[in-house]
Amino acid sequence: MIQPRTLKGFRDYPPATMIPREAIIETAQRVYRSYGFSPIDTPALEYLEILTGKGSAETDKQLYRFEDHGGRLVGMRFDLTVPLARFVAQHIGQLGIPFKRYQIANVWRGENTQRGRYREFRQCDFDTVGTNSLVADIETILVIHDLLQSLGFERFTIRVNNRRVLTGLLDQLGLRGQTGTVLRALDKLPKIGAEGVAAEMVRSAKASDEQARQVLQLASLHGETSPHGNTEILGQLEPLIAGSEEGEAGLAHLTQLLAGSQAAGIAAHHLQLDISIARGLDYYTGMVVETFLDDLPKIGSVCSGGRYDNLALLYTKQQLPGVGASLGLDRLLAAMEELDLLEEASTTAEVFLPYFAAEHLGDYLRLASQLRAAGLRVEFYPETKKLGKQLQYANRKGFRVALVIGEDEFMAGQCQVKDLAQGTSRTVDMRESGSNIVNEVKRVLDA
Amino acid sequence: MIQPRTLKGFRDYPPATMIPREAIIETAQRVYRSYGFSPIDTPALEYLEILTGKGSAETDKQLYRFEDHGGRLVGMRFDLTVPLARFVAQHIGQLGIPFKRYQIANVWRGENTQRGRYREFRQCDFDTVGTNSLVADIETILVIHDLLQSLGFERFTIRVNNRRVLTGLLDQLGLRGQTGTVLRALDKLPKIGAEGVAAEMVRSAKASDEQARQVLQLASLHGETSPHGNTEILGQLEPLIAGSEEGEAGLAHLTQLLAGSQAAGIAAHHLQLDISIARGLDYYTGMVVETFLDDLPKIGSVCSGGRYDNLALLYTKQQLPGVGASLGLDRLLAAMEELDLLEEASTTAEVFLPYFAAEHLGDYLRLASQLRAAGLRVEFYPETKKLGKQLQYANRKGFRVALVIGEDEFMAGQCQVKDLAQGTSRTVDMRESGSNIVNEVKRVLDA
Repeated sequence: MIQPRTLKGFRDYPPATMIPREAIIETAQRVYRSYGFSPIDTPALEYLEILTGKGSAETDKQLYRFEDHGGRLVGMRFDLTVPLARFVAQHIGQLGIPFKRYQIANVWRGENTQRGRYREFRQCDFDTVGTNSLVADIETILVIHDLLQSLGFERFTIRVNNRRVLTGLLDQLGLRGQTGTVLRALDKLPKIGAEGVAAEMVRSAKASDEQARQVLQLASLHGETSPHGNTEILGQLEPLIAGSEEGEAGLAHLTQLLAGSQAAGIAAHHLQLDISIARGLDYYTGMVVETFLDDLPKIGSVCSGGRYDNLALLYTKQQLPGVGASLGLDRLLAAMEELDLLEEASTTAEVFLPYFAAEHLGDYLRLASQLRAAGLRVEFYPETKKLGKQLQYANRKGFRVALVIGEDEFMAGQCQVKDLAQGTSRTVDMRESGSNIVNEVKRVLDA
Repeated sequence: MIQPRTLKGFRDYPPATMIPREAIIETAQRVYRSYGFSPIDTPALEYLEILTGKGSAETDKQLYRFEDHGGRLVGMRFDLTVPLARFVAQHIGQLGIPFKRYQIANVWRGENTQRGRYREFRQCDFDTVGTNSLVADIETILVIHDLLQSLGFERFTIRVNNRRVLTGLLDQLGLRGQTGTVLRALDKLPKIGAEGVAAEMVRSAKASDEQARQVLQLASLHGETSPHGNTEILGQLEPLIAGSEEGEAGLAHLTQLLAGSQAAGIAAHHLQLDISIARGLDYYTGMVVETFLDDLPKIGSVCSGGRYDNLALLYTKQQLPGVGASLGLDRLLAAMEELDLLEEASTTAEVFLPYFAAEHLGDYLRLASQLRAAGLRVEFYPETKKLGKQLQYANRKGFRVALVIGEDEFMAGQCQVKDLAQGTSRTVDMRESGSNIVNEVKRVLDA
C-alpha cells in the first residue's frame, strides 16, 4: 500500500477552501471582463531558455526544470509575466494593440517552505500591452479598486507612486546611477525598517549617511487619511524635484493619475500617493502600485503592479510597453478568512433533499429537477438512511434549507421546508412544479 | 534574442479560443454545483509512486517525471482520477461520505503528437464517492444531460450500459474469465469495426469464431430512436441473460436507471441503452456511459464515465466505491466551433467607448464607471486616435455597441449609441448617471 501524501510545499484544496477560492476567481474574472480584459492561457511548460535569466538568480534556482521525452530542456513557469512576454512577441501581429489580457493560472517555484511559502500557487494577472497611455494606468487603479470592493472589502488603501519621481528625487540628491540599488533597498522598508534600509543604501549604493537620511525622509511622504493628503504631497514634492526632467514628468503623471481616478469615482481614502512604494523589480519604469488592507496591514500588498517600458525585448524587436497588476489570490483568501468575510460551507448547493420514502425515488428526482430548472441548487441524498443522519450530514456541510418529504407528505402533496440555521419549518404545497417550494426557499435564503 | 515559441504538443489560447473555453467551464461549474458537487484542487506535482502503475504501461511511459530540488522523484498528474483516489484516501475522515466533488484542472501526457493529441489538456471531472446507490448513477446521467443542454446542444445521445450485463452475457457464452480482454476488444468497435473486433477476440481472448460472432450480435443491441427502444432491448436481453446472477443484477439496475432518468425528465431520445458500450478501462464495474453528438458522431464521446468498486484501494483499506464522468472540454469546444454554437468575439466586453475629445478624459472615465456600475462591460480605448481607427479596432474585436461622444456631444449632453452589427445609431441623453444609455445598449443587445 502506498502512503497517500502531498509533496512538501504543495497542498490540497478541500471544498471548504476551494469554494471561496473559486468565488474570488469568479469575482476577478467579472471585474477584469467589465473593463474589456480578455482571458488567455499559456502552457505550464516552456522551453527552458524562455524562462531562465528573466527573473532573478533566485527564480532561476527555484525553477522546476527537466529534460522531456524528446530530450528538450523544459521548465515549469514561475510567473505569468514571462509567458505573457513570450506570448505577445509570438502573436502580437494577430492580436493587435492595445492588447488587454488577464490570465489566472498556477505557477511553480521550488521555494524554501520554512517561510510558510507554497511551491504551487495561483496568480491572477491583468495587463494592457502596447500603449503608454495614462488611461491604462488609471484603469489599473480602477480594476484594483473594483476588485477589492466586489470582494466585500471596505477598508483598503491603494498606494501609488511613480518610478520617475523617485529617479528625479535621487537625481537631485546626487544619487543618479545608483537608482536601482537604492530602490531595491527602499522596497525593503516594511521588512527591515528605516535603519536597515539606510545601512543597505550606504553599503550597496555607496550613499552617504546624509543621502540615506534624505531618501528616507522623502519616502516618509505619503497622503494621510486627510482628503487633501495627496494634493499636499504633490505640493511638497514640486520644489524637491524642480529641474529634474524625469521627476517633473513623473509628478505631472501622478497628478493626472489621481485626478482621473477621482473622476472615475474612487474615494480619496482608497487611493494614497506614497513615495516609499518602489517595487523591487527592475523592470518597472513608471507608475508603481501596491494595495493594503487597512485592518491587516501586516500581510503586505494583496495586489501589486506597475508600468514597464518594454515587456518582450528578449523575444522581439517590437517595443511593447505596458501596465498591469497581479492579485495575490491566496493571500487575499487568508485575509478574508481572518476578517470573517467568507461564508463557511462545504457545499455548493443551498437546498438539501433527504431521501427516506424509498418507494418514491421517481418523485424525489422529478421534484429535484423542477427545483433546479427554477434556478435552485439541490443535493439529493443518495441513500435511504435515517432522517436524523441525513440532516446531520446537511448541517455539517452547511446547507441552508432541507426539504422534508416522507410517505405522509407525498400522500398529502406537501413538503416541509426546513430552515436549517433557525431550526424552523413551514409546510407548503408541493404541486405546480414545486413553485411554492421555490418561493419559500427563496424567502428563507433572503432572510 | 530568444525565439518565442511553444513546446511541441503544447498550445497558447488567445482570447478568441479562451473566451468560449471559459464559458464552457462556467457552464460545467454551474451544472455541477446545481447537484451539490463541490470543487476541490490537488497539486500538479505528486510523488512519482502515487502516479506510476495506475493507468496503463502507456501512461507510465508518457508521464512527465523528474527529480525535484530535494531529490524527490516527482511526476506531473496525467489524469484527475489518480489524484482523487490519493485525495480521498488522505482526507476522507474529515470529508465524510458521500463525497461529491468536481475538479477542473490541467493534466499532462507526453503523447505522440502525430495523432493530433495535445500534451497538456484540461479535464472537467465529477464523481460521487462512498456510495453504491443507484441515485448517484442516475445523477451522473442527469448531470451529463443538463451539461449538454446548457451548452446549447439539442441533438445528443447518452449511451448507457452496465458491465455486469456484459459479464452475464459473456458467462452465458462460455467466455467467463476472458471478460477483460473481450471488453477491451469490444471497446474498439467504432475504431476497427466488427471484423477487427472479432479477429482480436479470437486472437487475444481465445474466443471461437462463433463466440465472437455472438458477442458482436449482442453488441448490436441498442435502443434506436423509437421511444420504446430501450424497453424492447431490455426484453430481448432478459432470456439471453437468465440464470446469470451477475447479468440479472445488471439488467435490473439498468431498468431502474432508465426509469429514474425518465422520472427526472430526460427525454427518451437522449438516453439509449447500448450493449456495445464497454469502456476500455478495467476499473469500471457497473454502469458505463458515453455521450455522442448526433450531428458529429465521428468525434467520439464528449462525456464518458462509469461506476467503480474501489477507487482508492492502493492508498487505503477503506473501500470507496463511486461513480462519475469526465467532460472532454477541448473536444466539446471543437464540436461547438464546427456546429456554429460559439459566438465569435475576441473581447469580453460588449460596449466600446472611443476616446477622441482629449480634454474630456474625466468625463469619459466617469461615464464608463457609471455604465459598469449598471452591469455593462465597457472597454474605453486608451488613446485619442482617429475615430475610424478606433471603430476598426472595435469591429475587429467583435464589440456589439460603440458609444460615440465627441466635443459636440459633451456640449449637448448627448451620446450616439452605435449598433456595430447593424451600422445604425441613436442619439440619447447622457445625463442621469447614463441610465438612458444603459437602456439603449440593452435594447441593442437584446435585438
